[in-house]
Amino acid sequence: MKQEVAVIGVGHAKFGKRHDATLRELVHEAARPCFEDASLSPTDMDASVIGVCGDYFTGQGSPASLLSDYIGMSQKPTIRVESACATGSAALRTAWAQIKAGQHDLVAVIGVEQMTLVSSAQATEMMARGGDLRWEYPFGCTFPGFYAHYASAHMTEFGTTRAQLSAIGVKNHHYGHKNPYAHLQKNVTLEEAMKSVLIAWPLNLYDCSLISDGAAAAILASAEKAKQITDTPIWITGVGSSSDTMLLSGRPNLFGIPSTTRASRTAFKMAGVGPEDIDVAEVHDCFTIAEIMAYEDIGFCKKGEGGKLAEEKQTYHDGKIPVNVDGGLKSKGHPLGATGVSQCYTLVKQLRGEAPPGTQVAGPEIGLAHNVGQHGQYVNVLIYQR
Amino acid sequence: MKQEVAVIGVGHAKFGKRHDATLRELVHEAARPCFEDASLSPTDMDASVIGVCGDYFTGQGSPASLLSDYIGMSQKPTIRVESACATGSAALRTAWAQIKAGQHDLVAVIGVEQMTLVSSAQATEMMARGGDLRWEYPFGCTFPGFYAHYASAHMTEFGTTRAQLSAIGVKNHHYGHKNPYAHLQKNVTLEEAMKSVLIAWPLNLYDCSLISDGAAAAILASAEKAKQITDTPIWITGVGSSSDTMLLSGRPNLFGIPSTTRASRTAFKMAGVGPEDIDVAEVHDCFTIAEIMAYEDIGFCKKGEGGKLAEEKQTYHDGKIPVNVDGGLKSKGHPLGATGVSQCYTLVKQLRGEAPPGTQVAGPEIGLAHNVGQHGQYVNVLIYQR
Repeated sequence: MKQEVAVIGVGHAKFGKRHDATLRELVHEAARPCFEDASLSPTDMDASVIGVCGDYFTGQGSPASLLSDYIGMSQKPTIRVESACATGSAALRTAWAQIKAGQHDLVAVIGVEQMTLVSSAQATEMMARGGDLRWEYPFGCTFPGFYAHYASAHMTEFGTTRAQLSAIGVKNHHYGHKNPYAHLQKNVTLEEAMKSVLIAWPLNLYDCSLISDGAAAAILASAEKAKQITDTPIWITGVGSSSDTMLLSGRPNLFGIPSTTRASRTAFKMAGVGPEDIDVAEVHDCFTIAEIMAYEDIGFCKKGEGGKLAEEKQTYHDGKIPVNVDGGLKSKGHPLGATGVSQCYTLVKQLRGEAPPGTQVAGPEIGLAHNVGQHGQYVNVLIYQR
Repeated sequence: MKQEVAVIGVGHAKFGKRHDATLRELVHEAARPCFEDASLSPTDMDASVIGVCGDYFTGQGSPASLLSDYIGMSQKPTIRVESACATGSAALRTAWAQIKAGQHDLVAVIGVEQMTLVSSAQATEMMARGGDLRWEYPFGCTFPGFYAHYASAHMTEFGTTRAQLSAIGVKNHHYGHKNPYAHLQKNVTLEEAMKSVLIAWPLNLYDCSLISDGAAAAILASAEKAKQITDTPIWITGVGSSSDTMLLSGRPNLFGIPSTTRASRTAFKMAGVGPEDIDVAEVHDCFTIAEIMAYEDIGFCKKGEGGKLAEEKQTYHDGKIPVNVDGGLKSKGHPLGATGVSQCYTLVKQLRGEAPPGTQVAGPEIGLAHNVGQHGQYVNVLIYQR
């Protein structure tokens, strides 16, 4: 295992409808415990990388400088990065590269989004603008519609069932219920999940992730600094990214996301491990079908067998390959810029053995985070090892 | 000189009111000659970094994947970065770090903005949202106002004159007139500049940069690749960034931008050179006072003597330290995301000896680019050497 860049501190704000806090206050809520976790102060940092997806949710343009200043890092270099729903992992990979390049030793990574100040309909419209504004958006394509295409194609090709999709929702709510930071902390039965209101056939309410406010934070460090500062560094040993055609119609089929496979392979190759070595994973379940495709495209099971893996409860914390045992985007919530950093938070806690009761995987050594932007145009995969 | 990361190709779209082209077409217009310049195709690239400041100018959310796909790089990793008006240089420094980290060998950097689809008043309002939405924007602060504060403070402190400010506008129009890609290709006399309409005292029309559409592109390469591909690599030998308080009221004074000094020092230290070694510079003249302050804060002259340097024409192409001999933001135009990459284009052309007639500095060896976001909250300084 190469020890070059480590996560040495993490923090998490409560996800939810957070009208009690502004964008900067959400960031503070995640950053404060993160600095405490690393026993460092903001002025110890060399720089920050801030992930925010949409200015349009809050109206605040160019938010990085504002947020960096607010948490006590004025004068430190900062930059905002964005990759739609993969914005948080884009921030992590940018900070990782800065450290690996020798430019900085300590970089604070912040992911944040405040999405509920506008109505759900407005938020959905704003997210739809992440599709092609000329060739997809004008025809009414929104993200539930994009992923409904995937789900129906997957059902047709592999016989995946509605019950298998709902099994993902049930699992993720089971774990969200145990996660103090989750947006929706409630259990859902398979029957409830299957009978909920239709959003875009075959996806219903419990197949769709949440529109949430929230923030998460991590401190990345060079090997030298990490070893000075902590006895429990979590190393980032693999980083892979890929993209795909902007138009859904440009894809060879709709029952998988090839950019997930490409990004995973790059990350696995860098880390010198394979899907069989992963002890705990966070995958991008913006819709339940996305989690099923992720199982297959990363290589946790064969293509077409993701539904079965879910149905057999093999992705629970005590199963073959635990996935989204923090509730995932489905139950924890999906504040766009925060999600990728929240995945990092969960994996660091899992690898340290500090996950909430009833969610801790037994002695995990290697974790994988998979974060998708749009419908596969951005994929970032990171591998964490203790 | 450390040879680690080089620019091996550059391209530039025509800046101006470009209602004949969409955002993606502007990018194509810059990328096509850039790939030709490097004798490479888009599929040769490992990744792209895309600088776009505001989704709100065009309504297209998360533009990186769209633009990367449109120029033939679907499947290649991409990311959007943003640092207000320093977005272009933020893209360059991100690609530089990716290569220096050993993550990629060939990265396409694109900077683009299409600002004139909305009215000038709307564009000004949208840019003002880059100020603090809670504590500055509501009180009517727009960027001409912020920089008017700087100008009046500089005049009070150092006796800088309106004529010295206007001398910057005259110089930059002199060179924009010779730049085929410039938005406004016209000469302006000192009298015309001084008598133009007031925007925010003491700044008038010829003190303010333009609201423009445009794009610029560059290909960055690792040392090994650069040496294989070209005989005229331009090395990036210094990279420095800094930030500052979000509120203008948090600064110790208003006659300089300390983050420029901090970023410059970092870049100079990395490159092992000083301000006296720079043969040609691009500085961020969003307003004429910004160019005067840049002279001083970078160290081309003593603090308070920037106005005199301009008045004595020492920053013309045959002067002591040539600055913005492509027209600068003032005459070339300032499509926010494109500007930093356009600076790279100009310096690469200058260092190769390929600048337009009447603008080429005699045998420059070292160039410096200085790009400011907001009113100093983002500063990136890059040093280029042949």
